[in-house]
Amino acid sequence: MSGEGDILRKIELAMRSAPTGEKAGGVRLGMGDDAAVWMPRAGFETILTTDWFLEGTHFLRKTHSPDSVGWKSLTRAVSDVAAMGGEPRCFLLSLALPEGCTGKWMDEFLGGLGRASRKLKCPPAGGDTTRRKEILINICVIGEVKKEREATRSGARVGDRIFVSSRLGEAELGLRLLKSGFKDNARASALLRKHFYPEARVALGNWLTAKQMVTAMMDLSDGLSTDLTRLCEASGIGARIHLGKLPLASRIFSARFDEKERLQAGLHGGDDYELLFCVARRDTSKIPKRVSGIELTEIGEATNGAKITLITPSGKEIPLRAGGWDPFRR
Amino acid sequence: MSGEGDILRKIELAMRSAPTGEKAGGVRLGMGDDAAVWMPRAGFETILTTDWFLEGTHFLRKTHSPDSVGWKSLTRAVSDVAAMGGEPRCFLLSLALPEGCTGKWMDEFLGGLGRASRKLKCPPAGGDTTRRKEILINICVIGEVKKEREATRSGARVGDRIFVSSRLGEAELGLRLLKSGFKDNARASALLRKHFYPEARVALGNWLTAKQMVTAMMDLSDGLSTDLTRLCEASGIGARIHLGKLPLASRIFSARFDEKERLQAGLHGGDDYELLFCVARRDTSKIPKRVSGIELTEIGEATNGAKITLITPSGKEIPLRAGGWDPFRR
Repeated sequence: MSGEGDILRKIELAMRSAPTGEKAGGVRLGMGDDAAVWMPRAGFETILTTDWFLEGTHFLRKTHSPDSVGWKSLTRAVSDVAAMGGEPRCFLLSLALPEGCTGKWMDEFLGGLGRASRKLKCPPAGGDTTRRKEILINICVIGEVKKEREATRSGARVGDRIFVSSRLGEAELGLRLLKSGFKDNARASALLRKHFYPEARVALGNWLTAKQMVTAMMDLSDGLSTDLTRLCEASGIGARIHLGKLPLASRIFSARFDEKERLQAGLHGGDDYELLFCVARRDTSKIPKRVSGIELTEIGEATNGAKITLITPSGKEIPLRAGGWDPFRR
Repeated sequence: MSGEGDILRKIELAMRSAPTGEKAGGVRLGMGDDAAVWMPRAGFETILTTDWFLEGTHFLRKTHSPDSVGWKSLTRAVSDVAAMGGEPRCFLLSLALPEGCTGKWMDEFLGGLGRASRKLKCPPAGGDTTRRKEILINICVIGEVKKEREATRSGARVGDRIFVSSRLGEAELGLRLLKSGFKDNARASALLRKHFYPEARVALGNWLTAKQMVTAMMDLSDGLSTDLTRLCEASGIGARIHLGKLPLASRIFSARFDEKERLQAGLHGGDDYELLFCVARRDTSKIPKRVSGIELTEIGEATNGAKITLITPSGKEIPLRAGGWDPFRR
């Protein structure tokens, strides 16, 4: 059996094709010491976020390929940095593994993690490993945003327009396909992509904060109904959401899910990692239809009070209740 | 059952007596958003470290009080910052809890964590919580050290003198007492203190790097034999350690453990979180006997080659092999 040192070396090697040297996300001293040393940039503040990714809770060893587990564990943590309008700089990997997973499983996991690391320009700075019966992952991402330019959840004001990026509910529909026994093959991959390989909207989050047009922003990790409730609470507003405007799962899902199912997934499904953001009414016209290829859709407006109301195409008003994922709620 | 939001609020409240505001470790935006925003200081570099603290692996729910789990989880992570010569600034808490632990267990856990947080001047900046059958803790500490002043494991040179702080093996002997059924009561507390409530040597690490006298430094988390091997490998040196000079467990342990047991614990016992550091020979006389009340002891010297040799009081030479804790080694 290899020791902890061997495992750390394996991680270092697998990640070596990630950017290195002085420009490697500012990491001046990486793995192999008590801690990493990282150089922040002048004029920037540091963004800090950490995310669990646990076997049995967030993924299943039999269902989720190690490659996807690697990709998704980093991407979903970086998504929180994107939601603040920042750029990821480096990450720390805490990994607890069963003995039987230190070979092929870990190699493939590091493959997916390494691709995400390179794509997101977010190299590893260090971490901690231990042995455990189940696979436990915790990823801490260090990012940066220009001083006092970060987007928070609390800045939305009455009258602001509410937007989302891309489409909502595709990760949830992919998960439902998997639960119904659907296999991941070439034909299926487009349907499962959002569940296995989500994207972090870093370029979009950056663009929106650089233009100083968002009043509030967050990422959609637990579903629109839950996350919008959080944004409204933080900002002290209510919201009206136009059902007919919601960008639901794309056409390739229509053959398998009817409109009601796609609507439910769009409202309550988690794991999309799209951005939810608010824009002052006077700036709404400056928001383009797409940024770097990502569709932006106005779905409603911020209102007085604390209620979140859905408006149906026929004008009926329905209260929206948080129905997304909360690990402590049954 | 309370939701994730309630749990996060509980954590925030429990930690409120930690320093807050602009001076709260530079945390400008703490819990409650997608990520924290932290302000690094000009002229400093950032130290990043992360540490698992897992039920069944690092602590037992029946043996270790929640208060001690809270204290130790933060202190051992901060110890890595001390080992770089830095100061902790803030931390991220990832907590996975069984439903039955969100009440009293968590309150007491937050009590111990909060005391450590205040003592170490290291407030929480954020985190992640989820539900899980077993208690899982991961703590990421963000620290700072003056630019290019960090102490690493790799700077020791042949001829350097090797030092340790305080006494070695007391945490291990405390653990052995616990394993033999010894109960934690007032009479015992001095014997168990190092195991339940270790200290992070922040002031000492700072003093040593501020004086620019250490050539290499690390903390003793896995035992002297294992950690010294790591320092020697990183620095490309060997070492001679004088057995008679090792600062073994204090007298209160003598009634229960003979010299051989105390020696074994001092050589291989983990969890002490003392500092191991090297000093150029010409600077040795500048190292005082104590810094802020912590004893410093010269235990040996760096040699050519890669061998680590123990020298007995009678002059016999014995090779020292790593015998401390490595989770992936049986």
